[in-house]
Amino acid sequence: MRAVDLIVKKRDGLELTSDEIAFFIRGFTSGEIPDYQAAAWAMAVVLRGMTPAETYALTLALADSGDRLDLTRVVPIAVDKHSTGGVGDKTTLVVEPIVAACGVPVGKMSGRGLGFSGGTLDKMESIPGFRVELTTQQFLDQLRSVGLVLSGQTAELAPADGKLYALRDVTGTVPSIPLIASSVMSKKIAAGAQAIVLDVKVGVGAFMPTLAEASRLARLMVDIGRRANRRVVALLSDMNQPLGCAVGNALEVREALDTLHGGGPADFREHCLHVAAHMLLISGRATTLRGARSLATDALDSGAAMTKFRALVVAQGGDPAAVDQPDLLPKAPVVRTMKAPKAGYLAQADAKIIGMTAVALGAGRARKGDPIDPAVGVVVHAKVGDRLAAGTALCSVHASDSQKAQAAIEQLSPAFRIVARAVPRLPLFYCTLR
Amino acid sequence: MRAVDLIVKKRDGLELTSDEIAFFIRGFTSGEIPDYQAAAWAMAVVLRGMTPAETYALTLALADSGDRLDLTRVVPIAVDKHSTGGVGDKTTLVVEPIVAACGVPVGKMSGRGLGFSGGTLDKMESIPGFRVELTTQQFLDQLRSVGLVLSGQTAELAPADGKLYALRDVTGTVPSIPLIASSVMSKKIAAGAQAIVLDVKVGVGAFMPTLAEASRLARLMVDIGRRANRRVVALLSDMNQPLGCAVGNALEVREALDTLHGGGPADFREHCLHVAAHMLLISGRATTLRGARSLATDALDSGAAMTKFRALVVAQGGDPAAVDQPDLLPKAPVVRTMKAPKAGYLAQADAKIIGMTAVALGAGRARKGDPIDPAVGVVVHAKVGDRLAAGTALCSVHASDSQKAQAAIEQLSPAFRIVARAVPRLPLFYCTLR
Repeated sequence: MRAVDLIVKKRDGLELTSDEIAFFIRGFTSGEIPDYQAAAWAMAVVLRGMTPAETYALTLALADSGDRLDLTRVVPIAVDKHSTGGVGDKTTLVVEPIVAACGVPVGKMSGRGLGFSGGTLDKMESIPGFRVELTTQQFLDQLRSVGLVLSGQTAELAPADGKLYALRDVTGTVPSIPLIASSVMSKKIAAGAQAIVLDVKVGVGAFMPTLAEASRLARLMVDIGRRANRRVVALLSDMNQPLGCAVGNALEVREALDTLHGGGPADFREHCLHVAAHMLLISGRATTLRGARSLATDALDSGAAMTKFRALVVAQGGDPAAVDQPDLLPKAPVVRTMKAPKAGYLAQADAKIIGMTAVALGAGRARKGDPIDPAVGVVVHAKVGDRLAAGTALCSVHASDSQKAQAAIEQLSPAFRIVARAVPRLPLFYCTLR
Repeated sequence: MRAVDLIVKKRDGLELTSDEIAFFIRGFTSGEIPDYQAAAWAMAVVLRGMTPAETYALTLALADSGDRLDLTRVVPIAVDKHSTGGVGDKTTLVVEPIVAACGVPVGKMSGRGLGFSGGTLDKMESIPGFRVELTTQQFLDQLRSVGLVLSGQTAELAPADGKLYALRDVTGTVPSIPLIASSVMSKKIAAGAQAIVLDVKVGVGAFMPTLAEASRLARLMVDIGRRANRRVVALLSDMNQPLGCAVGNALEVREALDTLHGGGPADFREHCLHVAAHMLLISGRATTLRGARSLATDALDSGAAMTKFRALVVAQGGDPAAVDQPDLLPKAPVVRTMKAPKAGYLAQADAKIIGMTAVALGAGRARKGDPIDPAVGVVVHAKVGDRLAAGTALCSVHASDSQKAQAAIEQLSPAFRIVARAVPRLPLFYCTLR
């Protein structure tokens, strides 16, 4: 088998066999197949596509490029959730404690933020002392003892995926639904997940701006799961406006704590309960979505989820005082409010612009490895469809100095649009794919 | 400007500006743009295509990546010819002496054979002592004194083209008409050609199997010439069966000498006179094709072309005895004849199979740099359309041993097809594009 022949086959729109894909990914991982051949192949995939069978073969080849975690001796069923990334998406911080509080242990490996999309690890690190780097043994021990872990990767999971993504990033080959689907699913499979809830974001603040593209991605990931004998459900959720109000690391932790304490924005609470219910259903903890939802609501309202979250923080070296008194979390020195210039209905709160503004304030990274400021960000006070009086607060900017605050206010101004006629609210979820 | 943005632009089917293409090729030549980005870009070009304006910009960028030869102080007009490559194509050996004998100096830089297609340098080297490596100064001096040169590249012409071709060869990005056209024309422009006759081969033994593809390639190269203020004419000629009879280096030189002596296969003689006439016409030596043809025929029939060829051989260190007595050229120890198994009309003499058989005998290279055997090859004794009696010689195999001869006979057997009903002859030329 020669790499160039496989490139030619894909270039000509033919289907590669699973052996051919495994050969290509093995060669790419070991370096025998050079980057330039992988780049030509990736471009052919972007422009010619891949069948579901090819996408599944690629997923397995990526998953098998490194270690595979086996959680079956630690938990009855390894359940996981994955969000395709959005603005203000601190769902993990609330959903995982709810599920764990319902008796389903959750060991989750998360990533860092990149671009306008935030990352769970960065958010958790705004809790003083919280450690995200665990060994595999520490991960397994904590999963067994606490029933909840939120860490970075403990082992070298799917290294070919990381290598391929880095190459795609510089060769214009990121936007391919089969490549995105296999990237997501290979990491989940390598991390040992048996049941997976996919939160596929749709809208201007997501990687998939249209429902058509997001559905294709979701359907393909569900198909991969089915072929791999995993239980998978995909929820398509809105990402035109930020989820909840807070965008920025400590700001989002505070909002998650509010929610765990029974408060928090209504849309965010609803989103978390819906995702948690699906995790409970898919893991077999409940037999109906309604029953699962009721378990989740109880865990949240009773404070059991809060207790679980506190235990998680303590287990990973975080200061529980910051959980009990969120005021102890990092706070930005300058807070500036932006007001509605006129009365009317909010027609747009552009998640992408808001996310980029948060990054510019220092909440995210322009490049991998950049430092971040946990305190800064944006808090949006209105939702699309809200009726606003002139002068109502639209959002608050939390900045490290007044110059950055001013720049953020200017950057944010095109994000909001107020119109005279009533505007319908945006849905939280569009549909569920199984 | 960032390389990745130009890849994305091409991936999305947009037109690159000439500045963008120049930036990309400059970066690729210097190594600032890595191979993997060039490979992704080349695949996007293969699948998305390029406009004539883009193709022209690429041609200039490749031509400007190294030295440019200026022949204007040596010859009144620098005329050149280029064949896209075929089997048994020893045209240069006869055409260039004819044109030079008509008073139009020809300095030609040729290449070596690769794949089933032969190369002029390999053929000339079967003349004992003939040197193909000249310095630029030697090239210019001989062009001035003899009026005829046949050498390898004297300077670093279009190095980006060589680098890009090597990358395309291993990334499945060879078959792109814009990339092929710019590759050919960049070298011609860098070598200083002002008037160019393109011999574009069509058929199973050519890179372009169909007339439609060959016409597209020819039209694009003519368009590039027009934009670059070069006089260009493209002749589309048949390459379903070999040109002439001989395939193999010394065998082809012997056939060229026969032709220069007034003999040779009729199709090959006609092909050479037609190409030579176009060179004389395009260089202004004649005002009509008929007049140019008459000059060419005179030069061939009078022996003036033969005299020119002998002077060329002497000037480049070759043994003139081999020219005067072609029997002194290398000869294979084993000659085996393959006969027609039945009576009928020859319907096929597959140029590709015949070319590949010659390579297997040692006349060509499987890889760049492989040694070749000048003596071996195949001589085809019949042309498509010929009426054959059973037992007529179809072809002779010239081999280094009887085992190779036997293998060649077996390899050749599917090349020939004899049918009961009369078959029309194949045309020599299909059309002329200006």
